[in-house]
Amino acid sequence: MADYAQPISRLIEELRRIPSIGAKTAQRIAFHILGGPQSAADDLAEAIREVKKNLFTCSVCNNITSVEPCAYCADTGRADDSLCVVEEPFNITTIEKTGVFHGRYHVLLGTLAPLKGIGPEDLKLDKLEKRLKDGRIREIIIATNPTADGEATAHFLAKVLKDHGLRLTRLAMGLPVGSDLDFADQVTVRKALEGRTELKD
Amino acid sequence: MADYAQPISRLIEELRRIPSIGAKTAQRIAFHILGGPQSAADDLAEAIREVKKNLFTCSVCNNITSVEPCAYCADTGRADDSLCVVEEPFNITTIEKTGVFHGRYHVLLGTLAPLKGIGPEDLKLDKLEKRLKDGRIREIIIATNPTADGEATAHFLAKVLKDHGLRLTRLAMGLPVGSDLDFADQVTVRKALEGRTELKD
Repeated sequence: MADYAQPISRLIEELRRIPSIGAKTAQRIAFHILGGPQSAADDLAEAIREVKKNLFTCSVCNNITSVEPCAYCADTGRADDSLCVVEEPFNITTIEKTGVFHGRYHVLLGTLAPLKGIGPEDLKLDKLEKRLKDGRIREIIIATNPTADGEATAHFLAKVLKDHGLRLTRLAMGLPVGSDLDFADQVTVRKALEGRTELKD
Repeated sequence: MADYAQPISRLIEELRRIPSIGAKTAQRIAFHILGGPQSAADDLAEAIREVKKNLFTCSVCNNITSVEPCAYCADTGRADDSLCVVEEPFNITTIEKTGVFHGRYHVLLGTLAPLKGIGPEDLKLDKLEKRLKDGRIREIIIATNPTADGEATAHFLAKVLKDHGLRLTRLAMGLPVGSDLDFADQVTVRKALEGRTELKD
């Protein structure tokens, strides 16, 4: 990297701070920008600056938004009795695409991650608990990831929220639709067995 | 293929009848056998002949076995009140590996597949229904694959078996354990939402 002119090295360094961009990719992006017109570089720089300047966190649900409150919180057509708790703002789109959830969202902006030193106080649950005060929410669907951290967070939330008299549910773990039983790992098959559902004809 | 000596062409043709072995693979296997010692070829040929000669279908559950009835049907340590219905004999191993199921198995030896002309009569359900006669089985877990054919078969079985007064369940569909919500396809996320489970802290 030392062989590059300083502006290139600096851009490569900046790009490498982004998760999922490694040294090779950073280099490729940097030279792509260098090889393109000045206007393209300016547009990209502007887009990067704007994304931070004009977007912020919704004061109600922590979603990323350009309006306050965010579109999901402001939408009067959505049901107020169910709340889907997700880890990150982009998880909302994943749930929305299914077309079966019409309630509200709450974004944790992370999970418990003891190994990374992220504890309960970092989840800012006061914001979530404040939303439960008016008693309109009857069910909380915890849609954290089916990972160790996501599971730990789900169970921690269940513990914190148990005295609110709510229905607390968790996304089902099991076999992905269209997959094959024999390609599933054994923990997933076990979850699929344990979480088996009643079949109606 | 016409350029090969007849015995090679014949072996390649025979190998190609096996699902998942294409022309290239068949050729590679054939030349591997040709390049090895006669004894290796004899051993392979013998193993192929033996697998058919000494293994057969269990008269009770359709599992592949060398003893009658098969080890799962004969094992007195297994519970007689629950029956896990799978598509193929090798699915039994997948369920066994989870260590959470201790009942009996029934192998359908296929699924309904209307597009391939496989209808209800091909599933030989009389064998399954015969097993229900003594009333010991209280639950049937339908562990067909989470594919269109597997689902159709599960619902067909539910319909056929509904008058037996059994608990009929299906393996859970949902997010594979350890995966990420955003890598799941939308049908799977929908199933995970619809099949959400109650959370206890």
